[in-house]
Amino acid sequence: MTTFLSAHDVCRIVREIGFERFWRRLVDCLEQDFARWDSFDLTPRMASHSPKGVIELMPIADAETFGFKYVNGHPANPALGLQTVVAFGALADVATGYPLLLADLTLATAFRTAATSVLAARLLARPESRTMAVIGAGAQSEFQASAFKTVLGVDRLRIFDPDPEAVRKFVRNLARHGLEIERCANAPEAVIGADIVTTITADKRKATILSGNMVGAGVHVNAVGGDCPGKTELSRELLLRSKVFVEFAPQTRIEGEIQQLAADHPVTELWEVVAGRKPGRRRATETTVFDSVGFALEDFSVMRLLRELAEEMGAGQEIALVAAPSDPKDLFGLIHARQRDAELA
Amino acid sequence: MTTFLSAHDVCRIVREIGFERFWRRLVDCLEQDFARWDSFDLTPRMASHSPKGVIELMPIADAETFGFKYVNGHPANPALGLQTVVAFGALADVATGYPLLLADLTLATAFRTAATSVLAARLLARPESRTMAVIGAGAQSEFQASAFKTVLGVDRLRIFDPDPEAVRKFVRNLARHGLEIERCANAPEAVIGADIVTTITADKRKATILSGNMVGAGVHVNAVGGDCPGKTELSRELLLRSKVFVEFAPQTRIEGEIQQLAADHPVTELWEVVAGRKPGRRRATETTVFDSVGFALEDFSVMRLLRELAEEMGAGQEIALVAAPSDPKDLFGLIHARQRDAELA
Repeated sequence: MTTFLSAHDVCRIVREIGFERFWRRLVDCLEQDFARWDSFDLTPRMASHSPKGVIELMPIADAETFGFKYVNGHPANPALGLQTVVAFGALADVATGYPLLLADLTLATAFRTAATSVLAARLLARPESRTMAVIGAGAQSEFQASAFKTVLGVDRLRIFDPDPEAVRKFVRNLARHGLEIERCANAPEAVIGADIVTTITADKRKATILSGNMVGAGVHVNAVGGDCPGKTELSRELLLRSKVFVEFAPQTRIEGEIQQLAADHPVTELWEVVAGRKPGRRRATETTVFDSVGFALEDFSVMRLLRELAEEMGAGQEIALVAAPSDPKDLFGLIHARQRDAELA
Repeated sequence: MTTFLSAHDVCRIVREIGFERFWRRLVDCLEQDFARWDSFDLTPRMASHSPKGVIELMPIADAETFGFKYVNGHPANPALGLQTVVAFGALADVATGYPLLLADLTLATAFRTAATSVLAARLLARPESRTMAVIGAGAQSEFQASAFKTVLGVDRLRIFDPDPEAVRKFVRNLARHGLEIERCANAPEAVIGADIVTTITADKRKATILSGNMVGAGVHVNAVGGDCPGKTELSRELLLRSKVFVEFAPQTRIEGEIQQLAADHPVTELWEVVAGRKPGRRRATETTVFDSVGFALEDFSVMRLLRELAEEMGAGQEIALVAAPSDPKDLFGLIHARQRDAELA
């Protein structure tokens, strides 16, 4: 039997354990997995493109566990009342090939994206950082705010989004999270005095949300929105004068902000910093950029945490995702032997 | 919501509609899909290898529907009481990226493999064929027998397997299927007088289940067992004197019987025959080989049939495989707004 965690179950798990503990455990899982980067078999994602969007399968495995995520990207979905991105995924036992966990990853993708940003910022932002500008109040924005507050104590936010309704939703959702939130009239105003700048805009084009002039010395830029070819948020100048950190360079050079730079522009992979092989921030005056695009390892980490939590809490349900005849050579017998129904239930 | 068909549901669907109608509808679906081969986006499968086995993701899409299958291959599993192969998969809407169907494909893989063999044999075996040798009485054997009987009227079987228990299971499972079954002492005895020879052995090595001498003129060989590098069942000589048909040449040259032949050995793809672009059997005396390895298109066909049948019968259950907030930009609100639980249920 396979444990199934519906979207409902994932919500319940987070509510039950509480944001505080959930974020800490997730960042811990990510830190552990990034630190053992070499133990993963990293396969490029498979993408199926259509005029309306893209559907991807992202596989990853270590010696014990195989994982994959199904995820789409359909920019016109919100006009239909649907989300731009939904996701689900599975973990399986490498030794037998049997699936262990099937779970909604729509929420989990939002969680792991924010937690990875926090993992990076813990290594790259100035330790005393308390003020974060948030440019974009879409679906990911509150996840970023909640994670940064909980794990890093970033409790002053400066939010800007051209859509006032999105800003109202942001403020409403974070009302009881102990945050001081300043609404700003535009992006340049939002970044004033910010220690960390998080960009999470949705426009699928080469935008310049942050120009070189807007970001002062010592700032850490958490660039989350630019995550596919043709979609960027930072100016080339800003990238050139910053130290850039990425998840997996071959993927980020195609999908991230650094698609604007030469193919050999020096970048540091986050795991190298987590594992202590390379330095993170070196000086208080340095400008750092985490060019986040999302990587299969992060889905693996959040799936293994969900599996742990489901076990601890007894959450989810056991489902017959794959047939299980008592005699493995007698699959056919399952069908017309009514009395064997019990074996499948 | 996504329709989930457990292993249990798949069994129930087949029992309810009956083997007769199920096999005919599945062969029809396969025929329709092979005939519109050009309308599919064919992506190579992704394989993750480990010392114990392999885990694969097999994606495929047409303009309306994306599908993928998760499938493993672990030869040592039966010693643990587990199946060598289990599978599950999903269909999704290309226009929105939302998942439509999630289903056990362990049984469905067995069904589509046998139905594809029947589709090929209908075009390649002599029309009057009534006797089939079946070499190997493993999990796939009864599916082949049942499908050939139902769709092609092949009602005389000559079965051989070195394991007498496997043969007993074969005979027992097919007891009420209107078949005349002859148990044979070895493979050469089984093929005597057979119009069609089906090889479905499990040994993962270059075996010679059928040598050139064993197969007479006019026979159609349905070679199902040889399906990965290093695993073949037919002699090179037999292949060289036969007309060989495959699913998708680039894949079969790596995985199929023809891995024994030169990379440019002429083969015909099944869809070309189905679509009327190339001839199937040309003479009663010709020896034909269908070098079956299993292809993503077949999983697509069986998934779309299961979806149709589930709808007709009201089978399966609706599950929250992905989160569905009423405001697509307000994913965060799902978590701590208890009153919104209903939206997910």
